[in-house]
Amino acid sequence: MKAMDPPKYMATQEKGTLPKPPQPDYIWIMMMKAIEIDPEGELKLCERPVPAPGEGEVLIRVVASGMNRADLLQRKGMHPPPPGASDLPGLEVSGFIEAVGDGVSTAMAGERVCALIEGGGYAEYAVAKVAQCFHVPDEIDLVSTAGLPEALFTTTKNVFMIGQLRADDHLLVHGGASGIGTLAIQMAKSVGAIVTATAGTEAKCNLCKELGADLSVNYKQENLATALNGNGIDVVLDMAGGDTLTRDLALMNPEGRHISIAYLENRIAEIDIATVMKKRLTITGSTLRHDSPEEKEGCAEMIREIFWPEIVSGTIRPIIHATYKLEDAAKAHEDFAQGLHAGKILLISGENA
Amino acid sequence: MKAMDPPKYMATQEKGTLPKPPQPDYIWIMMMKAIEIDPEGELKLCERPVPAPGEGEVLIRVVASGMNRADLLQRKGMHPPPPGASDLPGLEVSGFIEAVGDGVSTAMAGERVCALIEGGGYAEYAVAKVAQCFHVPDEIDLVSTAGLPEALFTTTKNVFMIGQLRADDHLLVHGGASGIGTLAIQMAKSVGAIVTATAGTEAKCNLCKELGADLSVNYKQENLATALNGNGIDVVLDMAGGDTLTRDLALMNPEGRHISIAYLENRIAEIDIATVMKKRLTITGSTLRHDSPEEKEGCAEMIREIFWPEIVSGTIRPIIHATYKLEDAAKAHEDFAQGLHAGKILLISGENA
Repeated sequence: MKAMDPPKYMATQEKGTLPKPPQPDYIWIMMMKAIEIDPEGELKLCERPVPAPGEGEVLIRVVASGMNRADLLQRKGMHPPPPGASDLPGLEVSGFIEAVGDGVSTAMAGERVCALIEGGGYAEYAVAKVAQCFHVPDEIDLVSTAGLPEALFTTTKNVFMIGQLRADDHLLVHGGASGIGTLAIQMAKSVGAIVTATAGTEAKCNLCKELGADLSVNYKQENLATALNGNGIDVVLDMAGGDTLTRDLALMNPEGRHISIAYLENRIAEIDIATVMKKRLTITGSTLRHDSPEEKEGCAEMIREIFWPEIVSGTIRPIIHATYKLEDAAKAHEDFAQGLHAGKILLISGENA
Repeated sequence: MKAMDPPKYMATQEKGTLPKPPQPDYIWIMMMKAIEIDPEGELKLCERPVPAPGEGEVLIRVVASGMNRADLLQRKGMHPPPPGASDLPGLEVSGFIEAVGDGVSTAMAGERVCALIEGGGYAEYAVAKVAQCFHVPDEIDLVSTAGLPEALFTTTKNVFMIGQLRADDHLLVHGGASGIGTLAIQMAKSVGAIVTATAGTEAKCNLCKELGADLSVNYKQENLATALNGNGIDVVLDMAGGDTLTRDLALMNPEGRHISIAYLENRIAEIDIATVMKKRLTITGSTLRHDSPEEKEGCAEMIREIFWPEIVSGTIRPIIHATYKLEDAAKAHEDFAQGLHAGKILLISGENA
């Protein structure tokens, strides 16, 4: 970690011990507020040392942190952090760069960024790989960009890298009003694709249309096949699984690609092999968190090239359902679990709350 | 169709009518023996006009025709020929080029070839796209090469083009003793892959080993997972479907590719979406017959470059279970349907029978 004109947290000392600067074995530790998962899976406010950025990393003073279903799963022990990552929940943040690790220019100090991180976003400070940071220009609200990284990476990887969505292709997004869905609709439209989105309420369906969906289907009231009226699907971004996956295969065009990123309906799905063969379908899926840094960097490059300019210009915008104080993370999770939100739920840290 | 130093069948005339060569509306028709599917789905010997090769096509005097499961399905109305193709069964032949269509060099006359065709192989003459013909050198038995094209195209397309099998990848072939299986084992070994094959009898398992399989598993007596002993699979070539597909997914390495080319066990299979996501598996499949000529040409190019030299050198060889006379096609189908064969069953035409 390079010394910079003193990083804020250097000012604080650990529990009253007085440092003697020339003494080389003295370690400065600054504490921060964070939300941890207790052994019962409950969210609890705690104090933790501010993490130190390693090689190619930066320390971000967190302004806001995006909430993801993965955070709820992590409380149930179902989505453990990868080796070396923070045990604190939180996979995306926005804020200011406070310090940089080896190999990162100190000129980045103070930069407004949002970033995809391995964990530890529910905190006042978080470490991010510089390759996974995106510069947020002054005219863009920094808080709301905390809702972008997970959805940007997930959609770019699944819909565009794996699914190879192209102009005039037809994308079906299940959960169109979710954090990922709201962004996927806008991203697909920005490259000239046709988009059908499903959602569970009229309000959510209307939001999907506002964001550009050509067709939005209330799956609780309408039959998707009827609504599509014979228009085949090229790429499916699916969070439902189960019977939804089974039915989708019949709605796909030849060479269609079905990509699972969750299985809220059922983890097990039946597939008709004859349909897969005849239409040469591809059924696949992925998780984001355990990808290698190289894979994430490749994804970040595509985002920077194709989608970030659209965010800077305001064509693609984060949809924020609600913001909570960091201390109210448990309440925010209850809100999330109800499934009534459209767009992202954010936690606001420090003086910004 | 270009005139060549008189094509054999030109010598014969239709039912005693005497042609007057200058008369332009006179049509020469030569008849041939063939096997057709009658309305009850039975195979019947018939007389048909010898087909004329169109642009980019050749007429082959058939020496032998390979039998495929698709032929049995066609009798049940389940595998209809693509538009424009012969209604006669038979998807691969070997023989001599008798005449050529527009755009094909007459220098090919008399050439020994085997070819993938759209239909019409159960006959004395068949039309083939020149791009789907392979030159058979004199030192190779022409009859047995009739068992190569379907298996070569199917394996090249599914295992190598879709499945991207590479040296040191681990291929699992179900039906290792089938026509496709026996060739897939040899082709995978020729590029340095590791091969596990399954089959239903000890004799079939031994054949798989003789052909180079590193492990062969009698699926009726052994548990595949136990036999693999933790060695993960990268590519599966699956003809079984059903529970076999479900179980295979658990045995695959990350980034594994599962490719269905049939579903002898069950057309419906359950998949665990969590496994697909966590291992980033790809489940796909294809049929060969309805591919575009361009797709087949791409496949033929890869065969010519990588596998045909191995056939010419004898490293990869067709495995022939039995040969029947063309007239005995029904008997040959009974043999096939019993499922006791290892390798291909061929029908021999004309004086070669």
